[in-house]
Amino acid sequence: MNGTDPNWEALFDRARAGHVPSTSRLISALEAHRHGWREFLSKLHRSGGRAHVVGITGPPGSGKSTLVNALIRSYRDQTRTVAVIAVDPSSSLTGGAILGDRIRMLEHGLDAGVFVRSLSTRGAVGGVSRATVDAAAVLDASGWDIILIETIGVGQDELDIVGIAETAVVITAPGLGDDIQTIKAGLLEVADIHVVNKADTPGADKAVAELLAMLSLGAPPEVDGWAVPTLPTVALDGTGVNALTSTIDSHRTWLDSSGESLTRRRNSARARITSVAKDLLLEQIGDPSGRVDLEGLVESVVRRDLDPQSAAALLLAAVTPTANFLEKTG
Amino acid sequence: MNGTDPNWEALFDRARAGHVPSTSRLISALEAHRHGWREFLSKLHRSGGRAHVVGITGPPGSGKSTLVNALIRSYRDQTRTVAVIAVDPSSSLTGGAILGDRIRMLEHGLDAGVFVRSLSTRGAVGGVSRATVDAAAVLDASGWDIILIETIGVGQDELDIVGIAETAVVITAPGLGDDIQTIKAGLLEVADIHVVNKADTPGADKAVAELLAMLSLGAPPEVDGWAVPTLPTVALDGTGVNALTSTIDSHRTWLDSSGESLTRRRNSARARITSVAKDLLLEQIGDPSGRVDLEGLVESVVRRDLDPQSAAALLLAAVTPTANFLEKTG
Repeated sequence: MNGTDPNWEALFDRARAGHVPSTSRLISALEAHRHGWREFLSKLHRSGGRAHVVGITGPPGSGKSTLVNALIRSYRDQTRTVAVIAVDPSSSLTGGAILGDRIRMLEHGLDAGVFVRSLSTRGAVGGVSRATVDAAAVLDASGWDIILIETIGVGQDELDIVGIAETAVVITAPGLGDDIQTIKAGLLEVADIHVVNKADTPGADKAVAELLAMLSLGAPPEVDGWAVPTLPTVALDGTGVNALTSTIDSHRTWLDSSGESLTRRRNSARARITSVAKDLLLEQIGDPSGRVDLEGLVESVVRRDLDPQSAAALLLAAVTPTANFLEKTG
Repeated sequence: MNGTDPNWEALFDRARAGHVPSTSRLISALEAHRHGWREFLSKLHRSGGRAHVVGITGPPGSGKSTLVNALIRSYRDQTRTVAVIAVDPSSSLTGGAILGDRIRMLEHGLDAGVFVRSLSTRGAVGGVSRATVDAAAVLDASGWDIILIETIGVGQDELDIVGIAETAVVITAPGLGDDIQTIKAGLLEVADIHVVNKADTPGADKAVAELLAMLSLGAPPEVDGWAVPTLPTVALDGTGVNALTSTIDSHRTWLDSSGESLTRRRNSARARITSVAKDLLLEQIGDPSGRVDLEGLVESVVRRDLDPQSAAALLLAAVTPTANFLEKTG
C-alpha cells in the first residue's frame, strides 16, 4: 500500500452520487490493476445487476457512432441515464480513442446523465474484454440505467465483447463493400436486433432483403420465442431511433420473462471465470520472483531442442503450488 | 487410437514430396487436434526453420487479396514455391473462406508450386493464432519456400498473427474511409514494409504523404538498421510487385545479419509457450472427468454469492496436480 493507492470506497461513494470524474478514475484504476482492485471488483459484483447492458456493433461505414449518439438523445428524452463504453481497436499511437471521447463530449459534455469512455484494445491488462467487463461493472453498480458497449464488430475480441451484453444490436448499411459484408457475417449469429442504418439511401431495401436472405440461410430468425427483428433507421435525423430503444426494452422484458436471462448470465459467468483463471496463470508465469524459468524454455525452443508444446507443459508443471493462486487474489 | 486416426508419418512423407492433398489433410488434422497431434507438432518443430514466413495485412478495400495473387505470380516467375494461409475473420455461416479458396485455386489450381489454405477465425481449437502457427509449421517442414500469411488487419487476434511472421507487410490504399484509417493505426507499429496499393489512383501521393506523416509521429522510420520502406504498387497490373518481393528478400537478409532474427524467434517462442500453456489449462478446466466443478462456480457467480475473481482462484486451486499437465502432452 502507498500514498497513491486509490481510495476505492470514497471514489465509489462519489461515483454513485453521479460524480463523473470519480467514475472515470475508478475505471482507470481497475484497468491499471491498482492496489486493491480485486477486492473492489468483488464488492462491485455483489451490488450490480440493475443496468441494461446493450452491445452496439457494426462494421466501418455502417454509421455506428452516429447511431449511438442518436440513441443517447432518445434515452435522455426518456430521462434515462446512459453510459457509453466505446471499444476502440486502434493503437495508442494516434490517440484515436481520446479524440473520439472529446468529439462526443462536445455534444453531451454538459449533461450529467451521459457518460462516455473509450477503451483501447491495446494496453489493457488481461485484454479488452476484461477491461470492458470491469468498466461495465463500475457503471452498473454506480446506478447508470443504460450501458451501451460500442464496438467496430470485427475479430474474435469483438465477438467476445458482444457476448458481455444482454442485448446485442448489429448494424449494417446499404452499399458496404464485399470485404465488409464478409466481416459482418460473423455477427449475424449473435444479433438480438438487426438495424439497417442509412435507410434513406438508394439500395436500402436491397440491403434489408439481403440481410433477411442471409438470416434465413443460417441464423434462426426466432430464438426461443424472440423473433429477431430488422429495424430501419436514419441515425442522422433520428428516424427509427425511438422504435429501436423500444425494441431494446422489449428484448430485456423477454430475457427476464423467458428464463433466457439466466442462461446468458450463466454463459457470461463461465466465460469470465475461465478468462480470469488464464490471467492468473499468466501472472504466475510472468512473476520474476517465481519458480518458472520462462526464458530458459524460450531458449530451448529457439534452439529447437524443445518444441513449444513440451515447453508449455514444463512451464505449467513449474508453476508454484496452487495455494499461491489463492494468495494472489487476497 | 482408432482406425480413423491420421497416419502422420505417411502424410508427412507425401507432403514433403509435394503432394498437396496430404499437406491439406495434415493441417486439418492438426487443427482438429486428432490423436497424435502433439507428438507430430513436436517433430515438425525440430525439422522447420527454412521457409520465409511473410505476413500480409491490410484493411478492407486496400486490395490485399489482389496483391497476394500478384505476389504469387512474382514468386512463381522466380521458380520459388508459395503457400498462402488466408486468415478469414468471417464465420462458417456464409462459407466465405471456402469460396475464397476456390476463386484462387481457379487461377493457380494447376500449379503444383502454389498452395492456398483458408483458416477461419472461428472454430479452431485454441484460437486462430495457434491454427495459423501450426499450419505454417507444416508448410515450413514440407519444404515450401515462401509462406504468406494473409489477414484483414484488424483486432488483437490479427496483430498476434502478424507477430508470427518474420516480415510484416502492411498495405494501405488511397481513399479509404476514416474508420479504416483508425483500424490501420494499430498496424503501423508492426510493419517492416509499407505498401501503398492502387498507386495509379488519384490521391495516391497524398496517401503516401499521410502515411509518412503518421510514421514520423509515432513509429520509428528505422528499426535497428532497417529503414522501413514505403513502396507503391498497382496489384491489378503487377506494377511494383517485383520490387516488393526484392524488398521482402532484403528484409530477411537484414534479419539474419543483424541478429534481429534471433530476437524475433525468441519473442515468438515466448508468445507460443504461454499461449499453449493457457490452452492446456483450459483443457484441464473443461475435462468433465477432472476435479474441477466449473458449473458449481458458475452458479455461485450468477447468484452473486461469489465474484468471478474469487471463482477463478478457486478453479485454479482445484486443477489437478501439475503432473497431469505433462501427461496431457504425452
